[in-house]
Amino acid sequence: MKDFLNDNFLLESGSAEKLYHDFAKDLPLIDYHSHLPPLEIAENRRFENLTQVWIEGDHYKWRAMRQLGTEERVITGTGSDWEKFQAWANTVPYAIRNPLYHWTHLELKRYFGIDELLSPETAEGIFHQANKMLASEDFSARGLIRSMNAEVITTTDDPLDDLLSHQQVNAEEKSFKMLPTFRPDGVINIEKDEFSNYLLAMGKSTHLTISDWESLKSAIKSRMEYFHCHGCRLSDHGLRHAYGYKYDEVKVDQILKDRISGKLPSEKDVRQYKSAIMHFLGTCYAEKNWTMQLHLGPLRDANKAMLEAIGYDAGVDSIGDFQHAEQMANFLNKLNVEGSLPKTILYNSNPADNEVFATMAGNFSEEGVKGKVQYGAAW
Amino acid sequence: MKDFLNDNFLLESGSAEKLYHDFAKDLPLIDYHSHLPPLEIAENRRFENLTQVWIEGDHYKWRAMRQLGTEERVITGTGSDWEKFQAWANTVPYAIRNPLYHWTHLELKRYFGIDELLSPETAEGIFHQANKMLASEDFSARGLIRSMNAEVITTTDDPLDDLLSHQQVNAEEKSFKMLPTFRPDGVINIEKDEFSNYLLAMGKSTHLTISDWESLKSAIKSRMEYFHCHGCRLSDHGLRHAYGYKYDEVKVDQILKDRISGKLPSEKDVRQYKSAIMHFLGTCYAEKNWTMQLHLGPLRDANKAMLEAIGYDAGVDSIGDFQHAEQMANFLNKLNVEGSLPKTILYNSNPADNEVFATMAGNFSEEGVKGKVQYGAAW
Amino acid sequence: MKDFLNDNFLLESGSAEKLYHDFAKDLPLIDYHSHLPPLEIAENRRFENLTQVWIEGDHYKWRAMRQLGTEERVITGTGSDWEKFQAWANTVPYAIRNPLYHWTHLELKRYFGIDELLSPETAEGIFHQANKMLASEDFSARGLIRSMNAEVITTTDDPLDDLLSHQQVNAEEKSFKMLPTFRPDGVINIEKDEFSNYLLAMGKSTHLTISDWESLKSAIKSRMEYFHCHGCRLSDHGLRHAYGYKYDEVKVDQILKDRISGKLPSEKDVRQYKSAIMHFLGTCYAEKNWTMQLHLGPLRDANKAMLEAIGYDAGVDSIGDFQHAEQMANFLNKLNVEGSLPKTILYNSNPADNEVFATMAGNFSEEGVKGKVQYGAAW
Repeated sequence: MKDFLNDNFLLESGSAEKLYHDFAKDLPLIDYHSHLPPLEIAENRRFENLTQVWIEGDHYKWRAMRQLGTEERVITGTGSDWEKFQAWANTVPYAIRNPLYHWTHLELKRYFGIDELLSPETAEGIFHQANKMLASEDFSARGLIRSMNAEVITTTDDPLDDLLSHQQVNAEEKSFKMLPTFRPDGVINIEKDEFSNYLLAMGKSTHLTISDWESLKSAIKSRMEYFHCHGCRLSDHGLRHAYGYKYDEVKVDQILKDRISGKLPSEKDVRQYKSAIMHFLGTCYAEKNWTMQLHLGPLRDANKAMLEAIGYDAGVDSIGDFQHAEQMANFLNKLNVEGSLPKTILYNSNPADNEVFATMAGNFSEEGVKGKVQYGAAW
Repeated sequence: MKDFLNDNFLLESGSAEKLYHDFAKDLPLIDYHSHLPPLEIAENRRFENLTQVWIEGDHYKWRAMRQLGTEERVITGTGSDWEKFQAWANTVPYAIRNPLYHWTHLELKRYFGIDELLSPETAEGIFHQANKMLASEDFSARGLIRSMNAEVITTTDDPLDDLLSHQQVNAEEKSFKMLPTFRPDGVINIEKDEFSNYLLAMGKSTHLTISDWESLKSAIKSRMEYFHCHGCRLSDHGLRHAYGYKYDEVKVDQILKDRISGKLPSEKDVRQYKSAIMHFLGTCYAEKNWTMQLHLGPLRDANKAMLEAIGYDAGVDSIGDFQHAEQMANFLNKLNVEGSLPKTILYNSNPADNEVFATMAGNFSEEGVKGKVQYGAAW
Repeated sequence: MKDFLNDNFLLESGSAEKLYHDFAKDLPLIDYHSHLPPLEIAENRRFENLTQVWIEGDHYKWRAMRQLGTEERVITGTGSDWEKFQAWANTVPYAIRNPLYHWTHLELKRYFGIDELLSPETAEGIFHQANKMLASEDFSARGLIRSMNAEVITTTDDPLDDLLSHQQVNAEEKSFKMLPTFRPDGVINIEKDEFSNYLLAMGKSTHLTISDWESLKSAIKSRMEYFHCHGCRLSDHGLRHAYGYKYDEVKVDQILKDRISGKLPSEKDVRQYKSAIMHFLGTCYAEKNWTMQLHLGPLRDANKAMLEAIGYDAGVDSIGDFQHAEQMANFLNKLNVEGSLPKTILYNSNPADNEVFATMAGNFSEEGVKGKVQYGAAW
């Protein structure tokens, strides 16, 4: 057990070992999808302890602790950082065979050189040893990224973000670039309470009055242009399933106007609107030669009590069993027929859908472009 | 081949061997879900031959025999026990790689010490050798259970069952407890022909007139109380998929009254009613601190000719491909938000749904309770 | 790597090796489902080069080339055979781990005795070596079939086919039979543009006026009789999912009459019509003791631009995620209850559905018939 993290961890054949050690190992990291916090990287945050860098923002760890019956106070609540670390150390031995177990020990080893297994017995020693190292500049937000040999990292950003953090990092930092990703959930989720306020904020940010379909499209283009100037070449979408339903732009305009005036759309209206806006976004991405990333399939925020208490991304999402193929084909096909299909990466959450997504990607090619649509595997 | 059932059968690594032989092997059996027949255990049935103990009630074996073209007469019909045993012995060699092959030979070995492979050639010898052993008290219904080192067995019971068998066994038996499980299919399946008569029988059993939603809920509570007094701490449900649709209690009351007066509910009414009664049952289980078991996903009684001829559980059920995630989340969430989510075990029939169920379970936790909702794996 | 195609390729255990080498290897080939072109076999086509025999009709290879960004001109366009072969040779090294890689090298080895791996470097040598061999009679269309020790091959044929190619082959050929398969897509796909013209052609072919449900059924029976006389004992169907919806023959008659007069059916009408005609066909197959093959699940022609340019079977089909269990059970059950269930083989495209199909097959048995309904595995 003690050397489960040896040099050939996860390399299950001679070919795998050769490919990793002789080719992949020394390549720089180009991370085209992450949820790293731009502000912390701009400010080059120094972490006081392992809890701050490790548990504070990691809803995967929260989820495992909760399943063990741990009180929320020492997960996301008012408990001290040491109490929270203890709670995690109590959990780790039960997480064996879960990737969290691997990640935890890989991180201890690769960043801190710590070989011990984390448990209630080893918690105090590991906490102090790691915290001492965290005090050095090498373990600041940027220091950690540099130590991974990163060349480019991308973050996931709201279209209304001013990208000042990105400007600061790219002006100051020599070792890596930090580029934004355009994630326009705010203009897509017309059924959500916050939609109207989002349009107002977008209006302010773009100095436009968003009152209908045309002005919304103008505002989106304006924000895309802003992102483009700041190095953005990627978009990202989180969707239950694809939206490739037939729609009528006049009807979509009416649905949007109604929503702005406070009238909630029917389920059918939501499908029409989302199909229209996803198609519009796709054409914009193609125009600017951006790559479109689609994360499909999860059932989010299943536990509304936790959503209420902690907010989105509280660790109560699970794998969905939605149907994808037909609408995904319609969505990609319409863009393709019109010559507006951008480079695309499909990700799915349910491994039972792997073959659907992998084969879907192969349907849409372009002369002179290798792998126009890529299957990014379950995430 | 001859020692495919050696001491390490199914143990595929050194760790597996160690965990089984050093830890699991000598633990007593606590079986929280079975379909053992309570009356036969109360009466301590003596079996005249292997057919009676082995084939008479096992629709898995029936199914395999039918696929080989075996005549129904020697499966569930008027054939003699010896003819039925022969039919099974003819089938076994074709069942290699099917769990039936493993089960058959595990049972021959562990209960009877018989190492031979069952086939037409060995059938007669095995039949006689086993039948001789079945004549001894050690091979009575209770003797077989004792020989497996059972501490607790649970049966699956209709809410109207008088539980006299359970009383008798628990009064007489020193080695194990036999506890009931509450399986209220009868009050859930409002679309079935037998629903009205079931309510009448339930009225008799509870000395209540079941004429509406309130009186039905009272009757259910009354039967739960009866089961609780007889040691029941578990419920079980067999459902195509979860019912977490929105419903209105006034409307549900009307749907039920209409059904009692002979009017069949629409598909939408069925969804409303089932969502309401499943929610009511969940809250009752939570109140009594029972564990709720949900078996989801099968397509039952696909072959109506066999259903007509043999009845339910005739071996013509198969794995379904229904969607679960959304309604399952709604169902669990509503109970959880109201503080009425009981301990729950989710079982699914389609292995392609494993990840959906496993991750769903992790969404609903409770401080101080380890694994509030458990994923019980495909059955 | 060099001997990845050794004698035990794909045989992953001692038992597998024994079963193949001692039992399977020398058995003749009886192929009950193929898409071989009857005319080329009747004419005993001689192939000028590898491109003609290998790439000209293989949309799997086209698909792989397109994903690499290859121009359509050298896939299905006006490029020379040598250019097309080069395009494929460029693609093969990237196809490692894809079955295309195995098939390509198995075919080079088994038909041509060529052991080299195909790549841009080896392309010219392999092309010339294989082309020289293709010039001999042993490598004619029939020669290739004979060399595989084929006893029976079946083709997949339109009901209106005159089967003259089959007659010719069976009259001339001593080594193998070529039998037709009845694939009546033309009369099932009522929603397609070409449906009306298909009925006209069928009317001509049968000397019947197809004006309603009765006359359509007569025409189908007439073509089945023709196929039966030419040795057909198999049907084949390609369907998204099964059609077991309730229907009314009077309504179906009206739907068909409307369609003939130019009125397109609603989605619900399509379901009714397809359920009716699939049931009718099933009863006909049972009457004639034919075996019914059902290929279920794909999403076809996802890329409409390619459909427009190349036509059907252009390599832009992918794996679907449709629900099958309920309608499949209804379809098989109705036939079974009426005593009209033919021998059936179920194929599915999505491996996540394997268990659904495998267990569905086991629900429908018949005394004296081994494996009445078979699960044919994902294709």
